[in-house]
Amino acid sequence: MNAALLDALGRELGPGFVYDEAARDAAAKDDAGLLIPPEAVFFPADAGDVSRLMVLAGRHGFAVTPRGAGTGLAGGCLAVAGGVVVDLSRMARITLLDTANLCAAVQAGVVTQTLRQAAKEAGLFYPPDPASLTTCTLGGNAATNAGGPACVKYGVTRDYVLGLTAVLPDGEVVRCGTATRKGVVGYDLTGLMVGSEGTLGIITELTVKLIPHPREVRAAAALFPDARAAVAAVAAVMAGGVSPCALELMDRACLGIVAELLPFELPGPEAALLLFEADGDPDQAARDIGRMEAVCRDGGALAVLPAQNAQEREELWGIRRQISTRIHESAPFYLSEDVAVPIARIPDLIDALPALGQRHGLRVYAFGHAGDGNIHVNITGEAGSRDRAMALARDLIAEVLALGGTMSGEHGIGIAKRPFIDMELSQRSLSLQRGIKAAFDPAGLLNPGKVLP
Amino acid sequence: MNAALLDALGRELGPGFVYDEAARDAAAKDDAGLLIPPEAVFFPADAGDVSRLMVLAGRHGFAVTPRGAGTGLAGGCLAVAGGVVVDLSRMARITLLDTANLCAAVQAGVVTQTLRQAAKEAGLFYPPDPASLTTCTLGGNAATNAGGPACVKYGVTRDYVLGLTAVLPDGEVVRCGTATRKGVVGYDLTGLMVGSEGTLGIITELTVKLIPHPREVRAAAALFPDARAAVAAVAAVMAGGVSPCALELMDRACLGIVAELLPFELPGPEAALLLFEADGDPDQAARDIGRMEAVCRDGGALAVLPAQNAQEREELWGIRRQISTRIHESAPFYLSEDVAVPIARIPDLIDALPALGQRHGLRVYAFGHAGDGNIHVNITGEAGSRDRAMALARDLIAEVLALGGTMSGEHGIGIAKRPFIDMELSQRSLSLQRGIKAAFDPAGLLNPGKVLP
Repeated sequence: MNAALLDALGRELGPGFVYDEAARDAAAKDDAGLLIPPEAVFFPADAGDVSRLMVLAGRHGFAVTPRGAGTGLAGGCLAVAGGVVVDLSRMARITLLDTANLCAAVQAGVVTQTLRQAAKEAGLFYPPDPASLTTCTLGGNAATNAGGPACVKYGVTRDYVLGLTAVLPDGEVVRCGTATRKGVVGYDLTGLMVGSEGTLGIITELTVKLIPHPREVRAAAALFPDARAAVAAVAAVMAGGVSPCALELMDRACLGIVAELLPFELPGPEAALLLFEADGDPDQAARDIGRMEAVCRDGGALAVLPAQNAQEREELWGIRRQISTRIHESAPFYLSEDVAVPIARIPDLIDALPALGQRHGLRVYAFGHAGDGNIHVNITGEAGSRDRAMALARDLIAEVLALGGTMSGEHGIGIAKRPFIDMELSQRSLSLQRGIKAAFDPAGLLNPGKVLP
Repeated sequence: MNAALLDALGRELGPGFVYDEAARDAAAKDDAGLLIPPEAVFFPADAGDVSRLMVLAGRHGFAVTPRGAGTGLAGGCLAVAGGVVVDLSRMARITLLDTANLCAAVQAGVVTQTLRQAAKEAGLFYPPDPASLTTCTLGGNAATNAGGPACVKYGVTRDYVLGLTAVLPDGEVVRCGTATRKGVVGYDLTGLMVGSEGTLGIITELTVKLIPHPREVRAAAALFPDARAAVAAVAAVMAGGVSPCALELMDRACLGIVAELLPFELPGPEAALLLFEADGDPDQAARDIGRMEAVCRDGGALAVLPAQNAQEREELWGIRRQISTRIHESAPFYLSEDVAVPIARIPDLIDALPALGQRHGLRVYAFGHAGDGNIHVNITGEAGSRDRAMALARDLIAEVLALGGTMSGEHGIGIAKRPFIDMELSQRSLSLQRGIKAAFDPAGLLNPGKVLP
């Protein structure tokens, strides 16, 4: 994009269109650790602005990459083909909170926690809770079909998006889905757009389902001698008639870097920790957490640590959060993989990790949503480790696929996993997806270079 | 298809390929009341058989229409363009019931109730419960994204399909989705195939999510002076922190045809009945049903009738089932519409029905899943009423769309609602869907004449 084009776009699109270095740098990264500045950034005020941008993109042939809060872990919002990043963070109004019909309508830039809080004040619950929920946006959550700890009980973002408005690559605004809790009229364009990582359309507004807010949540942790015992307890909990609203696993490598935060001595070189929660009415939450504690004791837990109050619950989650933070800060290079395997195969996956790390000269940590089989494998190393980390990721994904799993449970493909996607999907599956992409974006203007190889 | 072609196909495909009059008549109808015999019927033993049929269809240019148990209400499995119906009912094996990973793998012809029962015996629950669950198949449920009473708490079929195998129109077999509870690798082809009414591929196998089976279910009914009071109670229940696992509404017209089954006198010309259930642990189910009874009493219920045991629960559901049966049998002509509106607008919908019936000289009944806003509007009349019924349906759908609703909550489009689909979907939405259809089925061999106009 030359200076004349940038000037012309600035005149057409107004003060929301910026291309100074500070703005470009601010849009150059997400949480995947890459740095790819766009040529310009546009902050639309409404879907009409987004539409005008897409019409101009078609006329002048530049790429457009949508962006929420930039908390993704796969580089999905980075402008790998140059062009304009469209940052939806200023479209941040909750336009409807309907307590009679249990739904909300939000602009794409509403922060997830803002909706959760507004719903809670009305006695309602929006369950999806990605780790970045205090900063990430619902548009980004929808684009990536974000998950989170609560999804083991409540499902992922797609399960809550009833309908949406999107700007198509040619600038036309299309409405998909319904404002009702059911709808089967035509193909599920809403569900297709959710998880398409901004490659089919730019989501500008969402109608989401809400449910009654649980009255209470209780938490506990259990320490096991090894991951195999911990995962056996996960399987026993999941099959035992209790629906936990979180069931998180942390392996020995993770526990090692937060050792001084733990209210126990680490018992050996293989220990693993489970953090679990139950919600509902107070007596039900108490009983369910008690049942899960009993399952853990029966399964050989060395210690069971119930949170007696909100502060103790916060301390347990603090361990989980600190693990993530400290891994990130522990080394110059960091890569977050996000595999999922059938629950019973989690121990096989965790057993395989030390050898994978040794083979590639990198450190490997595993924690995540064990009740979903969704394990965040975090890889760290010295500066300049990216090639080795990608080689490790390839080996990891091969192992995961052999275990019957998938390379991404909730982070998506973006550019980070694009080199590996054909390890999991057949050529025919990919060609069908290219056919869908071509039906939506024949000129390839929208988020090019993402997802499909 | 001439006799030579039929003979040749019989030789190629073996004894599963039949074209005698009895077989063609058996495949000529579903529950929509139309009669359209195909030219032949094929009973495949596996996906390879289906693939061979599709290759032959491509070579000879005949249409193929997939069929499960034929319990659909939109004509989706009828061979409107002639050709071959592929009946998957003999592919009826549960190939995996995995209690550690809480999932099952089934062939498309497994009857819904068969899976529910097998899961229950393992302590697990497959929630979707269409009214035809004792005969309908999981392949058909997936093709139509079937719902049912339990979906108000547990979601619809799409929420339980983790992955699937399908034969594409050119005969290639493709696998979509995962065996894990989460997965975001590429576009959601699984979710797209679910609800596509057999127009994109023939689903031959499904991997479905299971959840722990609730220990108890409790039911009660409440009689209201009018539908508006009943629906106000529905909204109060839904927003009140209880998640009912069924919340069914029956209007005065429905109650009239089962009057002698009711354990109360009908109080007036506007009465409405709610049937609701709660499940979970025994004490939780009892408390939740008690809360819903209290909400109904506070909302002006004339009578509240708790089911004290399984037999009384069965009697309450007997009323609901008899309504459906008797409406069907009450007149020579019958049409089932399946609209959904925001919960708070159900009374407006029900208020509009008598005038609609009078305008078109037909009888109109309304019952259904009030907690979803999904109301089955049943239309009856003398033989030869189809044109008038379709005119009524058009007026009904216009009314529903004006109320913010959708023309189909769970039955789908098929041929029955195809003339109306552009009242709800924009031309651009339809053209995107045609683009998807073309990417999957460029020759238009698979279930032609359905869904998209």
